[in-house]
This record gives sequence, structure tokens and C-alpha cells, in this order.
Amino acid sequence: MKNKKEINAGIIIIGNEVLSGRTKDINTSTLSIWLNSLGVQVKEVRIIPDVEKDIIETINFFKIKFSYVFTTGGIGPTHDDITAASVSKAFNIEYGYHKEAFSILKKYYKRSEFNEGRKKMAMMPVTAKLILNPTSGAPGFYVENVFSLPGVPSILKSMLGGLDHLISGGAPILSHTINLKTVESEIAKSLTQVQKNNQDVEIGSYPFFHAGTLGVSIVIRSKDQSRIDSCNSQILNFIQEKKIEIVDR
Amino acid sequence: MKNKKEINAGIIIIGNEVLSGRTKDINTSTLSIWLNSLGVQVKEVRIIPDVEKDIIETINFFKIKFSYVFTTGGIGPTHDDITAASVSKAFNIEYGYHKEAFSILKKYYKRSEFNEGRKKMAMMPVTAKLILNPTSGAPGFYVENVFSLPGVPSILKSMLGGLDHLISGGAPILSHTINLKTVESEIAKSLTQVQKNNQDVEIGSYPFFHAGTLGVSIVIRSKDQSRIDSCNSQILNFIQEKKIEIVDR
Repeated sequence: MKNKKEINAGIIIIGNEVLSGRTKDINTSTLSIWLNSLGVQVKEVRIIPDVEKDIIETINFFKIKFSYVFTTGGIGPTHDDITAASVSKAFNIEYGYHKEAFSILKKYYKRSEFNEGRKKMAMMPVTAKLILNPTSGAPGFYVENVFSLPGVPSILKSMLGGLDHLISGGAPILSHTINLKTVESEIAKSLTQVQKNNQDVEIGSYPFFHAGTLGVSIVIRSKDQSRIDSCNSQILNFIQEKKIEIVDR
Repeated sequence: MKNKKEINAGIIIIGNEVLSGRTKDINTSTLSIWLNSLGVQVKEVRIIPDVEKDIIETINFFKIKFSYVFTTGGIGPTHDDITAASVSKAFNIEYGYHKEAFSILKKYYKRSEFNEGRKKMAMMPVTAKLILNPTSGAPGFYVENVFSLPGVPSILKSMLGGLDHLISGGAPILSHTINLKTVESEIAKSLTQVQKNNQDVEIGSYPFFHAGTLGVSIVIRSKDQSRIDSCNSQILNFIQEKKIEIVDR
């Protein structure tokens, strides 16, 4: 893990089904919101295919670049699930039956159900630590700062609670959103001025169409609530001057 | 554009709002499905922040690595829209008012509405070619094999039709899906065998939960329909043997 002030993370989404457009990735959003709440900022996401070389290269690059790395997908029982074998190679650790994982799966399934595919889910870097799975038995695992989670969103989500204590983030990243009935170009100049005067705060502007309303969400992000409040007042000032309506979303 | 048999693409999603988890990216799916239909396979997606250095580096890497590169986001009127300036730097082309874009925007808006923010949307690499926007006026643009589109999904989607003729792909990538009422581990072994016997075809296995049914979608992908049909029969064979039910989704 890097010893820098900023605690950050990179996410690797592994799966041809996302690259083909068949599956829309929602794990990035789940992981990012959870990591933000722990004071960890996601800096980059890469969506890559089920190709061993690509997985190994991306893990090796990310594990040095970011404090924490999360992989999603490719840890199930089928032939296209090659994440565990790839992590083993990336860390040069033996790939084989993980004793504790094997024992968890053996208990989870009836003897007659514990077939080859299910046993495969106990194969991983043999010295990895496990991430328990309250939803469907098969655990995830982590090696150093690289955490491997499943691709099924509901299962992934159910496993994050068990990880909280392993993530040492900074102060949580706070945010405040102002939704306006306007278009971006009406506020661009004034908003640029507020951003210029408050360079330590991240101010984003996002157009939306919602329930027939055309609008803009302004999102103010910082670890310091008082800085958010200050930017918020500066923005409310020019909104009032311009007589722009604030709306709910 | 690379002169290789395989025509491929990389997508760069630019936006802090995706990395923060606030916005779920659906542009990847839209672009991938459209590109597949044109015979172009998406090989990698990177989600990166609104940071000039990151944008330039990723564009410079992708434009050599892939036949086509698509960027989404960051071409609006506000201070956090820095994609056009970054593309200019990546290609070492002057960033300034694009004559044709300026004239399109001038016609689109009433004179009193054509403010500084809206004028900014005409600023881009001055020699870029335009991608017309039937939804909201402001055009996208492309330089060589790098196409810059907006981040708002409905606007992005509306602009793809105008790009079809610029993309020379291979044969479209065809796919066939079989939805089964089973779990992955029941079919893993047989499916691995089919994949081994048909290595030119991409076979993916994806668990789903839908309307109370726990199931698995098997997706067969190839440019050759007869290869898909052949794998399909081989899979149907073992499904029948195992008495697994085929379901709709």
C-alpha cells in the first residue's frame, strides 16, 4: 500500500460481457460510493476482457499505482472465470485449493452437490486471505492490496460490509448537490469563477433530463464541510441574482 | 487506424461523476452494441477523471493501440469540460474556435442566447471534423481515429447514426443466448468441454436472478453464424442429457 497522504483506489472490471455491451457495469458505482464513505477516492477504472495477459498486466500496474485495487468478475465456476489464476500469476503465488475456502464450500453444499465446478471456486492463490460471502457461499479473496470480488452486483454488495475494517481511508469525501432548472451555458461563467476562487474544492456540473425538466446538477465535493458550505453560498448567490429556480430530483 | 485484420476499439469515459459513483456509465454499453453491429469489437474501456494529463496520456496510448477510439464526456460549456482542449494537446493541433462549429451554434441559438458558455462549445482542435448533433446543437468532433462525443447518454446515442459511414468494421459480431434454469456449477464441466472443442468461438456464462428465477445465460459469440449454430447444438445436447430447463428472460 502506498504511503501517501491521499488514499486512493483503482477498479478492474473483468468481463467480456461488459465490453460487448450485454451487461451494464454497476459495480463501479457500488464500489465507488462505498469507498468514498471510507475516505478512499477511486482514481481510475479499467474494463478489460477475460484474457489472462490483460488481467495480469493491469493488476501489476494498478497494485503499485493505487493504495487499493478491486477486481470484479471472473471468480465463478466456469471456464471463462480466470481471475483467481491470473491473480496467482501476478503475485507469483501457487494456484491451488485454498484450505479454508474449500472447507467453507464443503460445508455450504451437500456432499452430492459439491461437484467439480463448485470445487473450482476454492482454487485461488493458496496464501490469499478470504472475503466472506454471506449471499452465496463462495468467498472472494485478497492478496496484499488487491481485493477480488465476484461480478454479480447483489453478491458483490453483500460482501463489502466484511471489508470495512481492512480499508484505512482518509476523511470521508463529502458532497453537496444543487439541482437547478437551467442549462449549463447559463451558469458556466459564474461557476467557473467560483471554481477559480476555490481550487481546493471539486465542483462538477452535470446536465439532466428528469420528469420533463431540463436541468443542471452542481456537485460540490470536499473532505471539509465548511469548504462545501462556503462554495454552496457563493453558488446560491449567483443563482439568486440570475433568478434561477432550484428543483428537487 | 491500424491495418490489422481485427478491427477494434477502445473507449475513454471522462468524468469525475462516474468515478465518484454518482453516475452509472451506460455509454459503454450503447457504444459497444453499436460498434458490434458494425463489426468492431471493444477491447478496453478506461474511466478517468477530468484531469488534462490523464486524458492526454490515455488518448495517446489508445489511438495507437486501437483502430478506433471514442471519448465520452467533457465537451460541454462549463469549467470541468476539458476534453476538447486535451484532444488538441494530444494531437498538437491549435485549440480555438472551429469555424463550422461556431456557425452551427450561432444558427442554433438566438443572438441573445449565444453567450460565452455556448461559444465555448465551438472551441476544439481547429482542424477537427465535426460529428453532427441532432438533439441539442453542439457538435462532437473527430481527429484521425479519435471520436469525441458528449457524456449525456441520450445525446450521445442520437449522434451515432451520423457516424456509421465513418466506421469500417469487419463482419458484424453475432451472438446467441441460451437462458437456463440452473446454476453455473451444474454446467461448468460440460461447457468447458464445448469451449475447448470450439476455441474460435467465444462462449460466456453469466448467472442471473430474474423474476424469482435463478439462472444462467450462456452467450455464444462469433462472426460466423454456422459456428454459433454448431456450438448451440453441442450445448443443447448436454442440456437435454442433464434435463435442464430452458427459460425466457
